[in-house]
Amino acid sequence: MTRIAIVGVAGRMGRTLVNAVEQDAGATLAGGVVEPGSSLAGVDIGELAGIGKKGVAAVDSLEALADDVEVLIDFTAPKVTLSNLAFCAEHGKRMVIGTTGMSDDEIAELDGFRNRVPMVFAPNMSVGVNLTLKLLQTAAKALGDEGYDIEVIESHHRHKVDAPSGTALKMGEVVAESLGRNLKEHGVFERVGQCGPRSDKEIGFATVRAGDIVGEHTVMFATEGERIEITHKASSRMTFAKGAVRAARWVADKDSGRYDMQDVLGLGD
Amino acid sequence: MTRIAIVGVAGRMGRTLVNAVEQDAGATLAGGVVEPGSSLAGVDIGELAGIGKKGVAAVDSLEALADDVEVLIDFTAPKVTLSNLAFCAEHGKRMVIGTTGMSDDEIAELDGFRNRVPMVFAPNMSVGVNLTLKLLQTAAKALGDEGYDIEVIESHHRHKVDAPSGTALKMGEVVAESLGRNLKEHGVFERVGQCGPRSDKEIGFATVRAGDIVGEHTVMFATEGERIEITHKASSRMTFAKGAVRAARWVADKDSGRYDMQDVLGLGD
Amino acid sequence: MTRIAIVGVAGRMGRTLVNAVEQDAGATLAGGVVEPGSSLAGVDIGELAGIGKKGVAAVDSLEALADDVEVLIDFTAPKVTLSNLAFCAEHGKRMVIGTTGMSDDEIAELDGFRNRVPMVFAPNMSVGVNLTLKLLQTAAKALGDEGYDIEVIESHHRHKVDAPSGTALKMGEVVAESLGRNLKEHGVFERVGQCGPRSDKEIGFATVRAGDIVGEHTVMFATEGERIEITHKASSRMTFAKGAVRAARWVADKDSGRYDMQDVLGLGD
Amino acid sequence: MTRIAIVGVAGRMGRTLVNAVEQDAGATLAGGVVEPGSSLAGVDIGELAGIGKKGVAAVDSLEALADDVEVLIDFTAPKVTLSNLAFCAEHGKRMVIGTTGMSDDEIAELDGFRNRVPMVFAPNMSVGVNLTLKLLQTAAKALGDEGYDIEVIESHHRHKVDAPSGTALKMGEVVAESLGRNLKEHGVFERVGQCGPRSDKEIGFATVRAGDIVGEHTVMFATEGERIEITHKASSRMTFAKGAVRAARWVADKDSGRYDMQDVLGLGD
Repeated sequence: MTRIAIVGVAGRMGRTLVNAVEQDAGATLAGGVVEPGSSLAGVDIGELAGIGKKGVAAVDSLEALADDVEVLIDFTAPKVTLSNLAFCAEHGKRMVIGTTGMSDDEIAELDGFRNRVPMVFAPNMSVGVNLTLKLLQTAAKALGDEGYDIEVIESHHRHKVDAPSGTALKMGEVVAESLGRNLKEHGVFERVGQCGPRSDKEIGFATVRAGDIVGEHTVMFATEGERIEITHKASSRMTFAKGAVRAARWVADKDSGRYDMQDVLGLGD
Repeated sequence: MTRIAIVGVAGRMGRTLVNAVEQDAGATLAGGVVEPGSSLAGVDIGELAGIGKKGVAAVDSLEALADDVEVLIDFTAPKVTLSNLAFCAEHGKRMVIGTTGMSDDEIAELDGFRNRVPMVFAPNMSVGVNLTLKLLQTAAKALGDEGYDIEVIESHHRHKVDAPSGTALKMGEVVAESLGRNLKEHGVFERVGQCGPRSDKEIGFATVRAGDIVGEHTVMFATEGERIEITHKASSRMTFAKGAVRAARWVADKDSGRYDMQDVLGLGD
Repeated sequence: MTRIAIVGVAGRMGRTLVNAVEQDAGATLAGGVVEPGSSLAGVDIGELAGIGKKGVAAVDSLEALADDVEVLIDFTAPKVTLSNLAFCAEHGKRMVIGTTGMSDDEIAELDGFRNRVPMVFAPNMSVGVNLTLKLLQTAAKALGDEGYDIEVIESHHRHKVDAPSGTALKMGEVVAESLGRNLKEHGVFERVGQCGPRSDKEIGFATVRAGDIVGEHTVMFATEGERIEITHKASSRMTFAKGAVRAARWVADKDSGRYDMQDVLGLGD
Repeated sequence: MTRIAIVGVAGRMGRTLVNAVEQDAGATLAGGVVEPGSSLAGVDIGELAGIGKKGVAAVDSLEALADDVEVLIDFTAPKVTLSNLAFCAEHGKRMVIGTTGMSDDEIAELDGFRNRVPMVFAPNMSVGVNLTLKLLQTAAKALGDEGYDIEVIESHHRHKVDAPSGTALKMGEVVAESLGRNLKEHGVFERVGQCGPRSDKEIGFATVRAGDIVGEHTVMFATEGERIEITHKASSRMTFAKGAVRAARWVADKDSGRYDMQDVLGLGD
């Protein structure tokens, strides 16, 4: 049983992580951290997450967890995460990091811990999204230049401000790389009016924005006679939380190093 | 049994129409017309269509059918169609017209026959597409301004040169009209980069171009908690041929007048 | 602004209803009821629902709401609901009832209030599901006996114990009735092994059970050349809450009577 | 350019193969074989296939092709195929075999040629289906016993007499094997009535029969928070013809041996 602490346990992602650890047969809740001075220090983290008392009180300092925890899961902010990494290096802990929005400098600083901390760092912890990237690579290589048209269709909720989604672009890049194409050159992001027939090498993107769609991505490979579609549908942030817990279990017996979800899933080349 | 003749029986649509009549329990093949002087005059139209001898020889002039036919089905060209309408007016025949590309003048000329010929004229004879338009009207009126986001997604083969498809635009127009919106104002045909959150009244379009997709259209109504999707998928031109045969059966006992597929399907308001 | 009180405001559906009222521009929170003697009496119902203080304290007796409320929304239990109906009859209130599991006797008792209370009673308050039923009726009548095969496909989460879902069966019944068929005779609920070709009049059902799928239903009408698919996807219980709030607004100015969601949506025949 | 002859060129699959060779930039039509004594001997095989004169006359004996052909494509009948294999062994030709319905004895006889003829033998030549099997293997191994529910949904035309389809069963077997499960034990082929919640290890199948659907297969992996769906849609027999032509190009420079589509696509383990 991997003993896990959740940093930022009072936030929406933190509470989802408590649920995910609780559901995982190979992991156990060993701690939860709230901001220094928070009035939530001392509260049972199970009650905080709406799943009833678990006998683990929230603390407002990592020091209190130094003896009892194997792996920290951290979906907070860049500076907090880097500070937590220093703690892990000092106390021989491991870390799963889902924090986004790091600058290049901050990523370099994070990377500096790779020889002292076993860590999994991934901007998208979803097992399904990471598996999908691998499937796309396999599909693109097999279909190669055999006349399959490639399209990426993504749907998100009405509040999303950018298009296509970062995950859709990542999917397009993985396909393009596998085929020796360049997404900057071959990506087609709009088709309006008399746009002419499709070219052979383009990778098309279509975007839907509606309602409360958490996130759906389909990559289609189509030719005369058949289509292959690889689809990922996220229905809640549990997909990210469960991926993080799986990463925590995986990293619990690994040597120091910076890993990603492809490593966790055993999908690396 | 409605006695039907196919004009342009040697073309791809003509041969598909022969198949559709043959499959329809309420219709029978009474004639097929090829271009004047064609070497195919005299050939059995069943053999022409690849379904074996049917005992009906192709003719190269409508005159030869004056006694034996109730309804002409015509998916040819504007001038041919108008000439055939004159024949129908003179000989008391009825007509189903799927001809596209008519100018406003030609449509006016066609309309001039409405008091003398019972005719069904529709640019898209597909029963499913026409039913879908009706369903969209019902859905839009029921969901009204209750916070449902509306998106139209269409997929077609790689050779299609325009986007969105005419049918997708028609679907958007029907929805917009039902809601008192204007598609010119509220249609959104591209979303790229930092485009901001979705507005309440926009009707979004997404376009996929790939492989041999005959034509797929989905209109999505999405809000927090649910989505309704109305989808039409064409798999072959049989969808148009079968709609035309259904129209022919329907118009066989109607008075002179210009009807459309909404009338045939009993969906008119 | 329709003044609404939520009965059972501390439950999961109750808290979702608080959210739905808060989001609705035409409704306002006027009260929330918890069980008699509950320690939650006096708590702000906004805080209870996780959306911050709304200035409305939960009460443990309907009497406290006699002056200030127009419509009660009640998704509780049969006996509670019937008792609340008596309160509404006495105090001139209206009611939206989503309570399920009523016996025939209890429904008869409920029906006895139809001359004294304006009420909307529906086992499924989802606007989308109710609209879908109407669309199915329209589609079935238009496609009639024109050779369209009808299939109902439904997907639900892994915990669901019955198949097909009640909603799938309801959809099948609406289609069957519209076509003059009998679902008991024409419904096909399994196809395994050498089951032979499909018959013309059967209505097939396919069931998927997986993960956390809240509820997805598709009815397909397919023939040579085309398919029409009408799909409803629920993503959260907000779909039921929003339907209930819409019903509350609608019933606020209606005469005494027992209505259903077809009435609310203006879809009745 | 691989020089290809089509055996059974007058049949529906034969004519489709002519189209597929014609479209393939790396292959050329070198011959077409009709039944001995057929009146079609001497006819241009391009005209036979509806793509205009190609300058290749159909022959009614393989002997006529002994000098000019590298690879035979054969989707005929077991006895014809075995006779053609003997011809290939004698004349140093290669073979792509899509013939189905072979008995165990006939397969053993076919296998006897493996040291003398380079051959690709596959019951389903579709590139997409074979790729899909590989993707399923990858997905099943990555998701392993991590709580993903697996369901196979397949849709076919109204005339199909068995359920689930052979391809759906093959997909289920590949998934089961990858997970160390046994489809005989864990496959669930019907869910009707009070069937209780889903078990962890079951692999469910759902079947749709409607209209003219050529063949659609989806395998869904679903857990709390996400779904991955891998879908194959066949739209015409071109999918099989194109796979066969790809196999012919691939086998053109291989040593004697019996290969399958996994080998052709470079997906073997």
